[in-house]
Amino acid sequence: MRDIDFMAVYERVMKQIKEGAFLTVRAGEALNTMTIGWAAIGIAWRKPILMVMVRNSRHTFGIIEKAADFTVSVPGGEAKKALAFCGTKSGRDVDKFKECGLKAAPGRHVASPIIEIPGIHIECRIVYKNPIDPALLTRDYDPLYPAKDYHTLYFGEIQACYEA
Amino acid sequence: MRDIDFMAVYERVMKQIKEGAFLTVRAGEALNTMTIGWAAIGIAWRKPILMVMVRNSRHTFGIIEKAADFTVSVPGGEAKKALAFCGTKSGRDVDKFKECGLKAAPGRHVASPIIEIPGIHIECRIVYKNPIDPALLTRDYDPLYPAKDYHTLYFGEIQACYEA
Repeated sequence: MRDIDFMAVYERVMKQIKEGAFLTVRAGEALNTMTIGWAAIGIAWRKPILMVMVRNSRHTFGIIEKAADFTVSVPGGEAKKALAFCGTKSGRDVDKFKECGLKAAPGRHVASPIIEIPGIHIECRIVYKNPIDPALLTRDYDPLYPAKDYHTLYFGEIQACYEA
Repeated sequence: MRDIDFMAVYERVMKQIKEGAFLTVRAGEALNTMTIGWAAIGIAWRKPILMVMVRNSRHTFGIIEKAADFTVSVPGGEAKKALAFCGTKSGRDVDKFKECGLKAAPGRHVASPIIEIPGIHIECRIVYKNPIDPALLTRDYDPLYPAKDYHTLYFGEIQACYEA
């Protein structure tokens, strides 16, 4: 396990997130992981920030709304099958960990675990959120929301970023 | 002028934004530039996105609220004096371009100009905005808002990213 500067690995991280990464959230006993393909990383409020987005129709939404933190596990190796599964199946219906043979490993700084895969893991505490206000979103993006299940944006202050 | 992939220059861009970059906005006849030190870059809504933040007390706020777009000019060389000036003086009181000897050059894809300096320029059209809801922000960040002049987050879809 090796601590890394999020800026130095941005290109690798963002290119893989575009292909898929695991967003994992725990709130009390509730735990789920889902595939994300969007995120933004930067500096805000003088802190390193990772923003993720969850549609309010998702099983993960009910969990992250009660959670204090989340993790993003960015696979360094082959993970297409698990990413496809976790991006299309719901944690309401299946145990994604069992079905995909994924293991949750304890977070170092947050209650949410990481996915135990080789890659880059980012642990965040939630510092701000914004349920998208469709009135303020360009109409050009309406085709992304045929069911009006808008995302909530979660801004996580990066607590740890490491390669495992 | 050379088009570049925003992911490939992220580290350079974000390290300089941390030190200061120019956020430039035009709406009709109104034009201003200000120094920013925070931003986030990523993928959202299937597009490359640059998020910037403007406090509602800023002169730029009145302009960007009426604008369709903005640019961020990330200096590649020495620009400390101009960055310090544009981060502390208000466009309400002074003409920052004249005072700092900065020139506005036309944007390639947006109405807002760029600052004509050697560096990386990112042109964005505004696709979403979120006036920060203090009720959803961690209390840990209250010290950043003693005057309660919260930021609005502006999400720009990157239209062009180039080195000049």
